[in-house]
Amino acid sequence: MKLLEERILKDGILAEGDVLKVDCFLNHLMDVKLFHEMGMEFKRLFADKPINKILTIEASGIGIACVVAECFDVPVLFAKKAQSVNLSGEVYTTKVESFTHKRTYDVMVSKKFIGPQDHVLIVDDFLANGCALQGLIELVEAAGATVEGIGICIEKGFQQGGKKIRDMGIQLESLAIVDAMNPETGEIRFREQ
Amino acid sequence: MKLLEERILKDGILAEGDVLKVDCFLNHLMDVKLFHEMGMEFKRLFADKPINKILTIEASGIGIACVVAECFDVPVLFAKKAQSVNLSGEVYTTKVESFTHKRTYDVMVSKKFIGPQDHVLIVDDFLANGCALQGLIELVEAAGATVEGIGICIEKGFQQGGKKIRDMGIQLESLAIVDAMNPETGEIRFREQ
Repeated sequence: MKLLEERILKDGILAEGDVLKVDCFLNHLMDVKLFHEMGMEFKRLFADKPINKILTIEASGIGIACVVAECFDVPVLFAKKAQSVNLSGEVYTTKVESFTHKRTYDVMVSKKFIGPQDHVLIVDDFLANGCALQGLIELVEAAGATVEGIGICIEKGFQQGGKKIRDMGIQLESLAIVDAMNPETGEIRFREQ
Repeated sequence: MKLLEERILKDGILAEGDVLKVDCFLNHLMDVKLFHEMGMEFKRLFADKPINKILTIEASGIGIACVVAECFDVPVLFAKKAQSVNLSGEVYTTKVESFTHKRTYDVMVSKKFIGPQDHVLIVDDFLANGCALQGLIELVEAAGATVEGIGICIEKGFQQGGKKIRDMGIQLESLAIVDAMNPETGEIRFREQ
């Protein structure tokens, strides 16, 4: 998606350790107009899928998922990272390792809100090693629901997550795939799509 | 807001300990159509304010804030609950006690994304004792920005947060104010607005 690639080139900041900081429009300050454009693009890419629910994971996925959900006219379910007194009843749960926070989370969704009737689009801001996505796929499968596709804003194509997910036969659409980045020169190379 | 009050009566669940569970439309499964209606109502209520940024706190505030932000045509900044490797540079920070999670968080926003030029609408899903809001107000004030108002989905009117905030002279609009609730009978009484 040219609009997103241009924005990454304009505002993204590279740092050591394969960090691409896009906190000025994607995951701290959030440009909801851009989110809407991304939502319309996902709607185009998944036009033939009977999606009735969007699943994401807290925290930074939630904003994008909600704006995307407006484009699909469906509700959002977000997986929670810790047990909460407001999350009673039975839950589906899995473990996710966070690249950003260097730790492992318990992630869960309430069984009340996902089941065999659901055709799910998973949405998240970043895809790197794919741990968060694999956790979300496990939650959908545990519920007997169907993963219709995965919509990602930025994929780090030089990490293994994207390949792993595509090898599972799931339609994965990343609006920008960074194949190489160099924090010394500031160069970012995108995959042709 | 009649639409929200009716939804609370229809789908809200009361539990011991003054818990009002609205996880089927507000803070786990998220009804983005309802969020849009709430956004339009906030737009009406704050029509005379020069709002150029919406501030919320992770996690469940983010979805509402992003949909509301589309109605205002402004970006969202969300306060983060823990230090992250993606949050470099200088931050404004404060401490917030969570009613839901029974613990205290460090909450922060990057100094890059808020300053004296900002006229901020604070948005959150719940207002009970007001600790989260007081933390967000402190962050705005530390940045030299202006709190133009606060938009809340559900206020627990029998707790002290709303009164404290209104006594500060801030325009606080809660779309539904629960003045009393009885988990034994299931009765919920709303404040006339």
